[in-house]
Amino acid sequence: MLIAFTGQVALAQYNYRWGNQHRQRVEMIVGGDFVVTMNDAQPVIKNGAVAINNGKIVALDTEDKILAAYRASKRLPGEGKVLMPGLVNGHSHTAMVLFRGLADDLSLQDWLQNYIFPAEGQFVNENFIRVGETLACWEMISGGTTTFVDMYFKPDVAARVVERCGLRAVIAPSSIDFPSPGFRGWDDAFAAAVDFVKRWKGRNPRIIPALAPHAPYTVSPEHLTQAIQAARQYDVPLTIHLAETQTEVQDIQQRYNATPVQHLENLGFLESRVFAAHVVWPNESEIALMAKRGVGVIHNPDSNLKLASGFAPVPAMVQAGIQVGLGTDGAASNNDLDMWEAIRLTALIHKGKSLDPTTLPAKTVLRMATLGGAEALGLADKIGAIKVGLQADLIQVDLTSAHLTPLYDVISHLVYAAKAQDVDTVIVDGQVLMSERQVFTVNTEQIRREAIRIGEQIQAELRPSN
Amino acid sequence: MLIAFTGQVALAQYNYRWGNQHRQRVEMIVGGDFVVTMNDAQPVIKNGAVAINNGKIVALDTEDKILAAYRASKRLPGEGKVLMPGLVNGHSHTAMVLFRGLADDLSLQDWLQNYIFPAEGQFVNENFIRVGETLACWEMISGGTTTFVDMYFKPDVAARVVERCGLRAVIAPSSIDFPSPGFRGWDDAFAAAVDFVKRWKGRNPRIIPALAPHAPYTVSPEHLTQAIQAARQYDVPLTIHLAETQTEVQDIQQRYNATPVQHLENLGFLESRVFAAHVVWPNESEIALMAKRGVGVIHNPDSNLKLASGFAPVPAMVQAGIQVGLGTDGAASNNDLDMWEAIRLTALIHKGKSLDPTTLPAKTVLRMATLGGAEALGLADKIGAIKVGLQADLIQVDLTSAHLTPLYDVISHLVYAAKAQDVDTVIVDGQVLMSERQVFTVNTEQIRREAIRIGEQIQAELRPSN
Repeated sequence: MLIAFTGQVALAQYNYRWGNQHRQRVEMIVGGDFVVTMNDAQPVIKNGAVAINNGKIVALDTEDKILAAYRASKRLPGEGKVLMPGLVNGHSHTAMVLFRGLADDLSLQDWLQNYIFPAEGQFVNENFIRVGETLACWEMISGGTTTFVDMYFKPDVAARVVERCGLRAVIAPSSIDFPSPGFRGWDDAFAAAVDFVKRWKGRNPRIIPALAPHAPYTVSPEHLTQAIQAARQYDVPLTIHLAETQTEVQDIQQRYNATPVQHLENLGFLESRVFAAHVVWPNESEIALMAKRGVGVIHNPDSNLKLASGFAPVPAMVQAGIQVGLGTDGAASNNDLDMWEAIRLTALIHKGKSLDPTTLPAKTVLRMATLGGAEALGLADKIGAIKVGLQADLIQVDLTSAHLTPLYDVISHLVYAAKAQDVDTVIVDGQVLMSERQVFTVNTEQIRREAIRIGEQIQAELRPSN
Repeated sequence: MLIAFTGQVALAQYNYRWGNQHRQRVEMIVGGDFVVTMNDAQPVIKNGAVAINNGKIVALDTEDKILAAYRASKRLPGEGKVLMPGLVNGHSHTAMVLFRGLADDLSLQDWLQNYIFPAEGQFVNENFIRVGETLACWEMISGGTTTFVDMYFKPDVAARVVERCGLRAVIAPSSIDFPSPGFRGWDDAFAAAVDFVKRWKGRNPRIIPALAPHAPYTVSPEHLTQAIQAARQYDVPLTIHLAETQTEVQDIQQRYNATPVQHLENLGFLESRVFAAHVVWPNESEIALMAKRGVGVIHNPDSNLKLASGFAPVPAMVQAGIQVGLGTDGAASNNDLDMWEAIRLTALIHKGKSLDPTTLPAKTVLRMATLGGAEALGLADKIGAIKVGLQADLIQVDLTSAHLTPLYDVISHLVYAAKAQDVDTVIVDGQVLMSERQVFTVNTEQIRREAIRIGEQIQAELRPSN
């Protein structure tokens, strides 16, 4: 005991006198009892750590080895925690958090036409987006989302909020063939979207501008073709709602004599960098076609169930080699931005649907929420895994709650038992956005007050159109 | 302003000098910005409060009126909170939290026969139950469950833990036709269960002993008949797993030439006070039969999905007038005891399954998790709602998180957005078990250490039988 203690003192003195000079200085070292990497070769490192410099992961190993090779003024120890890649929310209309719970238990068409579109027309302005986007960023940081896709309005306002809150986002202003907040129709909406893309392309590596024609049933073939051309011209991704309901499939079939995915293929749309949300009702040949074209698919189980759109054939899409990510959709149809629920639902519902409990095992689903989403968005060279050279978009998940005790398999816990509120620490590009559940980049009290005020106004003044 | 202020001071002085003497003294007053009552006549009281005395609800009204009529040394203010009945978890094997995540993504039969039964045979003893049950009580208190059903082993140990932790439980020792922890087979297991019932009947109003023949496929007709007779003799409820899988239906059909519910009816089982877990595969006439016999059904969506048992026809059962409650099942097949997930899953999956978004609206599902469960368990004269004369089993849910902001409809938030960790306060029989998320009746640090130690032993020594 004494010898060991003396040895430790000697080692500490050695480190103090000499070790620090031999160890490479980095900005931050972050640990985890379990480091979940999303690298199949070494999926979990026990008692691991990551060294971070200039916003990037520069080393990944056991904590012992990291501490022997690196020193950092900032350390986030990993005791009682999982360290893993931040979650990627591949589909959302984030500022819609301000409509959370405004209208439930309605069909997609009723909900959209009679509640959501009127509410958007009446209330969505720059202040709404500033408050809604900030509230959404607060919620996403609290739950461990580090990258998200925002398909909504007033993208400049949204982008500035995201810059300030420190998250990473694909910001894709929604363009649609009828009037939307601030626009008379497609022409002015799409022109503004293209202007946004030009302004933000390459401006901030955390903000990826994109284009988002709303859906095949709300955007004409001519306008979809415009979107394809602009996406090519400015080299940005395209995202779209696709094959979400049986009604859409029938509608597109009737109008264009093709199913929705085939309709987009006929226009050349799928040859761009495309990721599509929902894809609940593709047929077999459409699944094969999306795999061939490298179309990413974002599965939104909460929204698909709540709006009764159906069960997307996720197992078949994964089987076909499609890059599948997960999304929450907007909080008006979910009713939150909780990726842990998307994870758990994805792992559960497809087992029930297929009557096969081996369907979409835990590991497959956790990958969808991280690296799978990054791949679907075309960002896997930057995020989605813990790997030297990738951006340091990381979260620590606390394991000390009753519902995560004891622990046999960390992946099982993350998929079947962990919750958003177990997320303890959130790091994006090496910047700590939350630690010990305290969010640093949002004035939460103020934004809560502002959100409540807007909610009260909406409740008082909303005139549903039905 | 001055007049109003002067008036308030005068009122305060009046209250101080005279008011206290006119107001009835009670033990506790608990408030809520919204009091969700489960009473259709007045489902939500804004700025409400409840007065509690001798463990019972003695008054329910707006906070103003309660404070004008009652005074209490203990007050739990309701600002930023919902006050609602505690959740009723109608089916669990609670100490199985110690097997949480031990084996996932397997079929029910593989999982039971090759992992769970061997693990139980090898590890379940009195210490396992003491630690597991305490860990489970900690988890349930943390998530706002106030009453639960425990269908497991060593019921005396479990009951003593529940007494100490302050929860309310139906404790139903599981009896089965083959060897189980401590027993050679049905005869000794069932005799011990009956002894438990005799010992605990009427002993503590928070502990309701019951009998639990495991399932029609694991208990012979003769033994089911014994259970019926004992339940009548000692006037206790019967609970059973029923029609959980298609395999069970085929098996029972082959063995007894009847479907499972009909098989129980033929034995006279359904004429007792019965609540059945799962009931995933009843046919139409069985649904009508259960309604006629007043059989309570506990729906366990997490478990039914994870084990790929299927989608229980909950909308049809509700339609038929069956009293349907919700349960988590054991944490080995869920993997937690989170009733909020059971609520959300129930509200979501049946919409997706029926392709009708009006299926099981929020209000219906929240009722299942509270009063519906109390009815199914035969306890609606004591718990499940906020009503004068019922026991004070109450929870406060914090509304100040991002994911519950803003608020249009409190019921929508509770069903589609609230999480276990939003529960702030838990009260059972007027005793505060948790406040500001601090659990008072469990030594959480110690039980966590003990649970981790048992988990390590299981991981080191478990010999799966496949």
